Amino acid sequence: VRVTAVSAAAAEKGPYRHYMLKEIHEQPAVIAETLEGRVHRGRLLEEAFGHEARALLDRTRGVHIVACGTSYHAGLVARYWLEELGVPAQVEVASEYRYRAVVVPEGTLFVTISQSGETADTLAALRRARGLGYVGSLTVCNVPESSLVRESDVAVMTRAGPEIGVASTKAFTTQLVALRLLAIALGRRRGLDAARERALCDELEALPRQVEAALRLDEAIRGLAEAFADKSHALFLGRGVFYPVAMEGALKLKEISYIHAEAYPAGELKHGPLALVDAEMPVVCTLPRDPLLEKVLSNLQEVRARGGELFLFSDGEVEIPLDRYRSLPLTDTCPSTAPIVYTVPLQLLAYHAAVLKGTDVDQPRNLAKSVTVE
Amino acid sequence: VRVTAVSAAAAEKGPYRHYMLKEIHEQPAVIAETLEGRVHRGRLLEEAFGHEARALLDRTRGVHIVACGTSYHAGLVARYWLEELGVPAQVEVASEYRYRAVVVPEGTLFVTISQSGETADTLAALRRARGLGYVGSLTVCNVPESSLVRESDVAVMTRAGPEIGVASTKAFTTQLVALRLLAIALGRRRGLDAARERALCDELEALPRQVEAALRLDEAIRGLAEAFADKSHALFLGRGVFYPVAMEGALKLKEISYIHAEAYPAGELKHGPLALVDAEMPVVCTLPRDPLLEKVLSNLQEVRARGGELFLFSDGEVEIPLDRYRSLPLTDTCPSTAPIVYTVPLQLLAYHAAVLKGTDVDQPRNLAKSVTVE
Repeated sequence: VRVTAVSAAAAEKGPYRHYMLKEIHEQPAVIAETLEGRVHRGRLLEEAFGHEARALLDRTRGVHIVACGTSYHAGLVARYWLEELGVPAQVEVASEYRYRAVVVPEGTLFVTISQSGETADTLAALRRARGLGYVGSLTVCNVPESSLVRESDVAVMTRAGPEIGVASTKAFTTQLVALRLLAIALGRRRGLDAARERALCDELEALPRQVEAALRLDEAIRGLAEAFADKSHALFLGRGVFYPVAMEGALKLKEISYIHAEAYPAGELKHGPLALVDAEMPVVCTLPRDPLLEKVLSNLQEVRARGGELFLFSDGEVEIPLDRYRSLPLTDTCPSTAPIVYTVPLQLLAYHAAVLKGTDVDQPRNLAKSVTVE
Repeated sequence: VRVTAVSAAAAEKGPYRHYMLKEIHEQPAVIAETLEGRVHRGRLLEEAFGHEARALLDRTRGVHIVACGTSYHAGLVARYWLEELGVPAQVEVASEYRYRAVVVPEGTLFVTISQSGETADTLAALRRARGLGYVGSLTVCNVPESSLVRESDVAVMTRAGPEIGVASTKAFTTQLVALRLLAIALGRRRGLDAARERALCDELEALPRQVEAALRLDEAIRGLAEAFADKSHALFLGRGVFYPVAMEGALKLKEISYIHAEAYPAGELKHGPLALVDAEMPVVCTLPRDPLLEKVLSNLQEVRARGGELFLFSDGEVEIPLDRYRSLPLTDTCPSTAPIVYTVPLQLLAYHAAVLKGTDVDQPRNLAKSVTVE
């Protein structure tokens, strides 16, 4: 039933001003869709990956992930997830990977990520990878009949439905869901026990509700976005798995508002980019309740000391000992899936900043939806 | 004799207006110094790494490199070099590495890079790495009595002499020289034959002369820099091993001129950042004569099509089929060391842009020379 609902609605904007806004708001539904039939009663149903998957995953000792743009950011998030579960992972942009001398350790799975499944560099990387001794290939993709799906040994489909806005939103969050499933599947082979698997699956099943809660910040985020309409720069900071989330937030703002937003791992600030910070530089940061919180807060102190304006998305229960900032709360997120939830307000921030600037949100200048040429 | 010359001169600026400019011009001498006694008649003298090095390198099958800021960029360059010689390598910023679940494949060498040897995050990463099953640790460092040197199994010293300017220049290029020596040492254990080793060593010995030639562009680069004095943004592009060179060029400009410069692998332009490009966006790119040249030129066509202003540092023999650009030639560089030579004009570009903007070149705002706190 859900599939039909998503597909039927896909062709129109409905009550939304732009496809991008509609697609942002579809995320609770398409995330639920991507979990459907794959997680049940606290267990991952691995057979849903297809009959070839089990043997391939059994042979996998490590992972190389190759992708472009937003999909590359999904891969970077997955790297943290995989290594936490004991699976060594490397992530690289396809246009670099395909022309580089790559050393492939024994037992390495080649993973591609692409919304369209036709991204030229990613497809070329897959074709090149064939001769390099990988145990096989797996793609995380949104289009079943695409080249990447056809040419990969295993496909884990995202079920985001058609994505019309050039800036990817629901494709990204469903990619992350698919990559969590992959991480659990490989984690099982590295000692992930049933109790922990149940906890991780429960966290996945709680996602649609949590993303819905994040979407209710829409109006408040529109308010924050006003501060960006006259800016030409922004910094996005994050640590750990929230660094690639910051990269994705910065990319959205770049793509549709043409604000020069750049992401940095917060700990690297002191090694250079802090020189850029003054009162004209808005700094966006996610503050989930995690072990790195104190470290991030101390990095943000440095930003404040140089006059940088702070825009925070923080766990509702986190105390923020800073002299001045604007902040919106997210509540009840779970450790393993928080990067997915915290992506949503960053998408909305970019959207509203672009609308306020009057740019063409669904068709930003210079960009195409699928990059099918090199 | 050379050591004395470098040390005696280190305390004063001599004829140079800033320490940074002096240090940029010292590079031919300190690169020669860093090679001294380590490369001789086309052979790497491995024993110069100390008596513990041989056994450690014999046990090494792969490398994890951890560093911060400019030293991190040196590590990223080394990754390309190492994998070309069959040695799997990963590179990570220390502030991320130290708080992450890391999977260490058997036979992995832990490598740190730091000018001061006291960088807090890098030192903490080394201490943490001890319990993770590495075969041992090696540091590339400029200060013999530093903590990193004392606490590492093997140290390959750069011999850059004291670096006073906050923005690192000669420390970076000598780090690259040290990392090339390491790559050759590990390459030997993966089938690098004597003839190829000789060729690579010859390319290293030609470096001081090539860097001197690059320094002769100083006055011409001052001319180019005038175009940056009124800019607040810049993009630096590169592919392959020249991508981290672009990152380093962008970081220099950020650090001392406060221009928001960002580097991208040129092939990723189409996946987002191209939206930023208009006539106000200067784009800097290195164009060595290498197998990726055609690809980079095609990326630059896209920049031109959107009105971006191009500033190129190109091999003198490369033909540039673009409708409009400014370019300065580098000649007679060698494939294995060109990243070192092409770094020099990017340092000079940042220097002159900062001088024209009137910033405090040797002591940029908000930054410290060695980051000894987290």
